[in-house]
Amino acid sequence: MAAERRDKEAFVTLVTNDSYSFGALVLGQSLRAVHTTRKLAIMITPLVSDNVREQLSKVYDDVHTVDVVDSGDTEKLALLSRPELGITFTKLHCWRLTNYTKAVFLDADTMVLRNVDDLFDKEELSAVPDIGWPDCFNSGVFVFRPSEDTYQALLQCATNTGSFDGGDQGLLNTFFSDWGTKDISRHLSFLYNMTSTIHYSYLPAFNRFGGDVKIVHFIGPIKPWHHQYDSRSGTVKPHPNQDSTLPPHHMDFLQAWWDVFMNRVKPLLEGQGQDLTGQLAQLQVYGVESPAHVSSEDHRRAWERGEIDFTGLDRFENIQKKLDAQIKS
Amino acid sequence: MAAERRDKEAFVTLVTNDSYSFGALVLGQSLRAVHTTRKLAIMITPLVSDNVREQLSKVYDDVHTVDVVDSGDTEKLALLSRPELGITFTKLHCWRLTNYTKAVFLDADTMVLRNVDDLFDKEELSAVPDIGWPDCFNSGVFVFRPSEDTYQALLQCATNTGSFDGGDQGLLNTFFSDWGTKDISRHLSFLYNMTSTIHYSYLPAFNRFGGDVKIVHFIGPIKPWHHQYDSRSGTVKPHPNQDSTLPPHHMDFLQAWWDVFMNRVKPLLEGQGQDLTGQLAQLQVYGVESPAHVSSEDHRRAWERGEIDFTGLDRFENIQKKLDAQIKS
Repeated sequence: MAAERRDKEAFVTLVTNDSYSFGALVLGQSLRAVHTTRKLAIMITPLVSDNVREQLSKVYDDVHTVDVVDSGDTEKLALLSRPELGITFTKLHCWRLTNYTKAVFLDADTMVLRNVDDLFDKEELSAVPDIGWPDCFNSGVFVFRPSEDTYQALLQCATNTGSFDGGDQGLLNTFFSDWGTKDISRHLSFLYNMTSTIHYSYLPAFNRFGGDVKIVHFIGPIKPWHHQYDSRSGTVKPHPNQDSTLPPHHMDFLQAWWDVFMNRVKPLLEGQGQDLTGQLAQLQVYGVESPAHVSSEDHRRAWERGEIDFTGLDRFENIQKKLDAQIKS
Repeated sequence: MAAERRDKEAFVTLVTNDSYSFGALVLGQSLRAVHTTRKLAIMITPLVSDNVREQLSKVYDDVHTVDVVDSGDTEKLALLSRPELGITFTKLHCWRLTNYTKAVFLDADTMVLRNVDDLFDKEELSAVPDIGWPDCFNSGVFVFRPSEDTYQALLQCATNTGSFDGGDQGLLNTFFSDWGTKDISRHLSFLYNMTSTIHYSYLPAFNRFGGDVKIVHFIGPIKPWHHQYDSRSGTVKPHPNQDSTLPPHHMDFLQAWWDVFMNRVKPLLEGQGQDLTGQLAQLQVYGVESPAHVSSEDHRRAWERGEIDFTGLDRFENIQKKLDAQIKS
């Protein structure tokens, strides 16, 4: 394929705080590990520290700062008493990356296991059915075409109709409402967005098809970087609040995440400022609520739909609070 | 539409024991309540008692006895050490109902809430994505064309390849393997097979679309007829082992099931032999394991994939054992 086309196509992710940057670093390195030929782009908010931004720039070709709060449209939404849509808008900024002709959005809590450059053969909007309500797509992985017009139309849709779940998934499914019925080629295989933390997964199907999983999506409030890692044995130890009913293969995917982290991300970060090293050395946290102990109905619902809790339980400040030395050595 | 076409199209279900007949009676009456213009057909095994068969014939136009065990093909499978496929075959018998040109199969633990005669405009094989693994369809509701050739080919597939889950869903997905990728019109909306017992359901989507649900599917080991009903207040009382994390709308669907049962099925059955009246008066049981207390990994997996446990925990003998007067009056 011509290099100029490759340069106009990118994988895109988003982080709104330092904590999710661990996910983005692993995601980016997982894409490098499978030898993607496309660009890697990341959107960050001003909440991401300069130090972390510098690390991200080692893995990502493009680092775009996007602003959550000061657009005129956000003000308009505030007038409409819909301030929560500001967060939703952050992901929509990916449509403004018009230096690319086509892109694949991946949530920062996904990891690529096999080369998925074939996704660029798909058209906007291609995505995987959501396992909660499969007439809708899961917005953790999708193929799209950057376009300022589409971005403006999405803003208009948000203002007029809003999101039925208060997040990007509800909004995008409202905007791309014919996804469920129009074109089978826009239904990506579950292998491109396999959620392993749902314990009602269809285990026999996993046993049959799971060897072909291409992208795993760590939905839920406990992220891979919240778990413990024993560097002597090279194995991940489950977070104490880990749901005990998770299927056995979930631990395999967590282990895969940590393998990329230890082998491909940690070496990049060593020798950096003490702040980041400290964070890295003490990744695992207490104080993140587990699925079994989630107290708020809203947060439970957000967790159920796999929504990234950018501003709540998962924000870096909460994680930072109760750091404990975790990469045992 | 011409009456002769209508007479050649049918809704089809299956019961293998008296217990599931309660489900089938409600399903049949729910189809009558929404004024279907198509025939109602039911396949039963010799395990269904004569008395129950007589009740079923009041609701279903055709009652077909199918045999689980004595076909030459089943013997062949036994030689292959695959005796479990005998149960799988029972559902496959629906392809032999060649007095119909097109049919819609519905599991006996489904209930129709709105007219779904439009399903006959769909082609074989149309079905809803399975929420565990949405590349596969859920085999609780599907549109098909009866055909002896297809039946034989399905048997051949079972013999050669088998079922990846040991049930009909794995086999049918193997046989109709292009369902996921070929034709969007064969992907039915989730509204035609809405499983309300999965507590990781995507609640905001339910809130948005749930008012349009057409068919509800009571997957899992605790069936609507296992719950308690208070005939004084006209309300269903949850089974003591009911999973407390089920979404609130699940109780609404259970109530709808009982409304059909009390208003449209129970009157049919009154004045019948004491045996059946006794069963009816004492529908709710203890001794059925709940999701929270399932001990066997296999059964847990079967439950996870919504598979009807024809021969195990849900069989009538187990239910019969610990009957307790439950329709309180």
